[in-house]
Amino acid sequence: MIQNILKQKVVGVDLGYEKTTYAIVDVRGNEVAKADFPTTDYPDINAYISHLSNKIVELVEANGGYESIRSVGISSPSGNYLTGCIEYSPNLPWKGQIPLAAMMRDRLGLAVAVGNDAHVRALGESAFGSAHGMKDFILVVLGHGFGSCFFSNGHPHLGYAGFAGEIGHNCYKVDGRSCGCGHKGCYESYCAGRGVLQTAEELLAASDEPSLMRGVSDLTPKLISDFCDQGDRLAIEVYRRTGEILGFILGNYASVINPEAIILTGGITKAGKWLLEPTNETFEKVVFHNIEGKVKILTSSLADEERDVLGASVLAWSVKEYSLFK
Amino acid sequence: MIQNILKQKVVGVDLGYEKTTYAIVDVRGNEVAKADFPTTDYPDINAYISHLSNKIVELVEANGGYESIRSVGISSPSGNYLTGCIEYSPNLPWKGQIPLAAMMRDRLGLAVAVGNDAHVRALGESAFGSAHGMKDFILVVLGHGFGSCFFSNGHPHLGYAGFAGEIGHNCYKVDGRSCGCGHKGCYESYCAGRGVLQTAEELLAASDEPSLMRGVSDLTPKLISDFCDQGDRLAIEVYRRTGEILGFILGNYASVINPEAIILTGGITKAGKWLLEPTNETFEKVVFHNIEGKVKILTSSLADEERDVLGASVLAWSVKEYSLFK
Amino acid sequence: MIQNILKQKVVGVDLGYEKTTYAIVDVRGNEVAKADFPTTDYPDINAYISHLSNKIVELVEANGGYESIRSVGISSPSGNYLTGCIEYSPNLPWKGQIPLAAMMRDRLGLAVAVGNDAHVRALGESAFGSAHGMKDFILVVLGHGFGSCFFSNGHPHLGYAGFAGEIGHNCYKVDGRSCGCGHKGCYESYCAGRGVLQTAEELLAASDEPSLMRGVSDLTPKLISDFCDQGDRLAIEVYRRTGEILGFILGNYASVINPEAIILTGGITKAGKWLLEPTNETFEKVVFHNIEGKVKILTSSLADEERDVLGASVLAWSVKEYSLFK
Amino acid sequence: MIQNILKQKVVGVDLGYEKTTYAIVDVRGNEVAKADFPTTDYPDINAYISHLSNKIVELVEANGGYESIRSVGISSPSGNYLTGCIEYSPNLPWKGQIPLAAMMRDRLGLAVAVGNDAHVRALGESAFGSAHGMKDFILVVLGHGFGSCFFSNGHPHLGYAGFAGEIGHNCYKVDGRSCGCGHKGCYESYCAGRGVLQTAEELLAASDEPSLMRGVSDLTPKLISDFCDQGDRLAIEVYRRTGEILGFILGNYASVINPEAIILTGGITKAGKWLLEPTNETFEKVVFHNIEGKVKILTSSLADEERDVLGASVLAWSVKEYSLFK
Repeated sequence: MIQNILKQKVVGVDLGYEKTTYAIVDVRGNEVAKADFPTTDYPDINAYISHLSNKIVELVEANGGYESIRSVGISSPSGNYLTGCIEYSPNLPWKGQIPLAAMMRDRLGLAVAVGNDAHVRALGESAFGSAHGMKDFILVVLGHGFGSCFFSNGHPHLGYAGFAGEIGHNCYKVDGRSCGCGHKGCYESYCAGRGVLQTAEELLAASDEPSLMRGVSDLTPKLISDFCDQGDRLAIEVYRRTGEILGFILGNYASVINPEAIILTGGITKAGKWLLEPTNETFEKVVFHNIEGKVKILTSSLADEERDVLGASVLAWSVKEYSLFK
Repeated sequence: MIQNILKQKVVGVDLGYEKTTYAIVDVRGNEVAKADFPTTDYPDINAYISHLSNKIVELVEANGGYESIRSVGISSPSGNYLTGCIEYSPNLPWKGQIPLAAMMRDRLGLAVAVGNDAHVRALGESAFGSAHGMKDFILVVLGHGFGSCFFSNGHPHLGYAGFAGEIGHNCYKVDGRSCGCGHKGCYESYCAGRGVLQTAEELLAASDEPSLMRGVSDLTPKLISDFCDQGDRLAIEVYRRTGEILGFILGNYASVINPEAIILTGGITKAGKWLLEPTNETFEKVVFHNIEGKVKILTSSLADEERDVLGASVLAWSVKEYSLFK
Repeated sequence: MIQNILKQKVVGVDLGYEKTTYAIVDVRGNEVAKADFPTTDYPDINAYISHLSNKIVELVEANGGYESIRSVGISSPSGNYLTGCIEYSPNLPWKGQIPLAAMMRDRLGLAVAVGNDAHVRALGESAFGSAHGMKDFILVVLGHGFGSCFFSNGHPHLGYAGFAGEIGHNCYKVDGRSCGCGHKGCYESYCAGRGVLQTAEELLAASDEPSLMRGVSDLTPKLISDFCDQGDRLAIEVYRRTGEILGFILGNYASVINPEAIILTGGITKAGKWLLEPTNETFEKVVFHNIEGKVKILTSSLADEERDVLGASVLAWSVKEYSLFK
Repeated sequence: MIQNILKQKVVGVDLGYEKTTYAIVDVRGNEVAKADFPTTDYPDINAYISHLSNKIVELVEANGGYESIRSVGISSPSGNYLTGCIEYSPNLPWKGQIPLAAMMRDRLGLAVAVGNDAHVRALGESAFGSAHGMKDFILVVLGHGFGSCFFSNGHPHLGYAGFAGEIGHNCYKVDGRSCGCGHKGCYESYCAGRGVLQTAEELLAASDEPSLMRGVSDLTPKLISDFCDQGDRLAIEVYRRTGEILGFILGNYASVINPEAIILTGGITKAGKWLLEPTNETFEKVVFHNIEGKVKILTSSLADEERDVLGASVLAWSVKEYSLFK
């Protein structure tokens, strides 16, 4: 049949711990409209779904209408693309297995895809960012948690049940630091947000050296990296140690995957050279010799405020179009 | 290794019979710079290659430099992606098998991919146009010639030797009109540019009915469709017959491929409803009943002046990065 | 977990119009056990499902037991892999959309896949037959009906809704012979079983030439090909005309797909050289010149009695393992 | 063209450190003929290529002839599928980059593919063994070395430059045991052949406990596992420690890949339960909780004497047919 209306826009949703951002995004990654609300206002999942659907409908009605939207993609912590569920997220208020895609589809009358943040960011960098044109690359999210997703032969590797990529819960040190996952010594507990802070605490406790970090009641990775810029030796040491561990895990990861590049994203990577240089140094020592000096270590080329909704929009395009009204 | 310079632009080249257009295009399909020159000025292939390379280098140097360009994609009549060659083009001045990709790579020190115009347009519509998000669709080019390319499971179907898609040289009528390919009765000789004109000539010769087409020395498909808009009955009949035949072939094509959509591109499709309505009518009669009323017939959503260089830029991203200097 | 029991066998089912054959098949295509029953005994679909499940369980219990079987694959007329349904088969007694895979899975407690006969044969030839190692090939079934399936980039092309491959219902002659699909002039009405017989009738009616075919009350394509072997000129002409039409459609098909080979299966192809030589002759005349002389025309290398259950076993491996008891 | 001769056999070659085995294998994994010779007799690569080609031609001529063979697949230590080369094998006598595929193709006039042993074994288990029907699985080779290959979305993951899978050279212990690769603390130096022996030496040196291992001048992993069967406590402890480390690395590996199964192959895995039970115990402790208890740990279901030539035969089918004589 002759089709005159083209559905060339999708909705990308970034379900973050604190804020939910949703945007209408076109084929080329332009945000047509965007809004957000606090995730934390909705401790009940039904209330959350209801609010999110209403807000999306509102945005869509104001920007071209239902007929112009093809589908919806959602980036969520512990989101599983194969089941469309949030699967036992440790940090979200909603427990157990949440059939997010099905609940949203019922409300919106549109196809809905769900993925975890690393998966979604890998899609985003592949479509619009640093990984464009790469068939085999690793994407790392280093923020509150430590997630990853890699592309194999041009497609995201999700694994048998959609749970692949948990490099952050590989063990760095037997009986090491306690991790939120219940295990000990996970990479996440050294390199993600709380890990960086714990390293700072340990360093401060182990020496008397003066440091701008001392006495700061609300120390953050961001503050520490600011102190690095001001030349604070202990702060620099915090990121040097973090980078050393990060380079170690990435070197091992790369020996297994042989990626064209590793794309680093997430708040911790904002520390820039303070993190990247020691990471790179250890990386090259650890990685198997046949690819030494040959793996690109990159940061994301997408802007922070669009990275996740862009990635979620790519996810939206991956599901078959569906409409209640046909 | 830490990589600071990202190659996020490519060069897309549209080698047309009359004009060669080349543009620097970024990841999201934005043209950074564009220029063109007459293809016909270079009847010698070495002179052509030399000129094209020089012009590309010039454009690149003026817009970010060699280090900012990842690779080059070229849309060419009879271009074969698997060999990188122009393969015996009937209408280009350069005869035989021309190793276009290899010759250009040697000149530019960059990876070069070559594809034919239907292949390249299919890539373009998939990345930036009407076919975005579709895994199985057919793209048709209906201009001087009648080419096609379809996507299967998310990838372009090129065939064993890269020659797939020659629907235009399927036989419509045994011992029918002579075709440039040497066969008789090919679809191309009915639906492409010359075919439309021949249908007009036949109609004019067969009746005395007055028509704006009569006495026009340089009749073109475009003029005929203008006359349709003015209510010329014979002109309308030209496109009705063309559409009837086009619907017939597309209905058969769709029964074999079961595409989500058929995207029509090329000068002939500018006739709009004069062509599309009869095409659609016959299509629905001919197509196998299980998909009747379910295949979208679409036109390209890309602008004419960017369609081919955009598609060629997508092609450029499909080859591995290569640089003389590493 | 350490897994000691390996499920290295599947059940392949060939649901034919007259006979249903089911076999336990191992990884390498060896039939471990096989049995059959008349499909026609079960005009009610529930009774059929019930009987088929019982017989499969019986065969499985006698040959290694439930724990040794991974999954089940079923070849069925009008079987749709994407939905698991028989979709409006014109010739089976069960009308409408039959959720065959779901019904069988519920009975057996095992994953079940369904495909149409051309799809299943393409899988069988790819895994164990003439198409092994080919990424792009066409398989044709020429028996009661005229089906096809082609592989693209190493995977079967099923199309957007699983309905691809209906070359037999492409139109050969506008307003030609009536076809079971409701259209007129379909290839099936010329080249499949009834088409061959109709050609014979037309030839016999059009001349007085003596022929062994005359006066045979129950003429079959097989008998006609036997008469060819005995030198019967009209019988030979029947297959010459059939081959001429078949070569025409395959030449056009090949121009679009550019396959490495075309594999011919089905009862009609038993006529051997009487069919193949005229097919080949027309094929080479019709096919686009760039692949003339380069497409292999092959017959199946699998034995008739195992072709469909083997193919169905390959289909069985394509679905995820599932067991009621875990 | 009508093709009567079908090339339904290939040659699979296992280039081992000590012995080179080559076999003619058919589509279903049946060995038609097989022979071998000592690799060590040919310290010069040209002499080796010459001898291997001659022996293959000899075997082929005696078993159906050149026209019956489609292509050749070779399993080699450090074999790289993407380049067709042996890439700087530390243990083979031929140094540097050896263009094995090109050299063999020139001699044989047939297409030749090369892969490393883990890649080839993964193909073999996928086609004929324990991994049949699995889209995402890990294969491990634990013998002299410690290699691996995993399948992603149904295809072997080879990585950007074909070097993926080097899990054996991931670091288990910083500044740990010296490894042949030049690094320290690699998994290979703990879990592969020499690692098991070193663990035995260390255990024997650290205690006075009597053991059958004491005083054996030519201790091998095989002997140690025999002693386990005889109840030798220290021997059992050797494999318990090996398994503990192996379970640790596999648990981490599985958290990243989320495989359906891990297939263990290689001489060390012959120790059976002495190795597997402690491996499994640590695996379940280490692996990320969402897949705990859900990854199958399997051993190969292929016979030792056919595993590598079968896998190499699968590799042979992956390249396009090529013949000198057409």
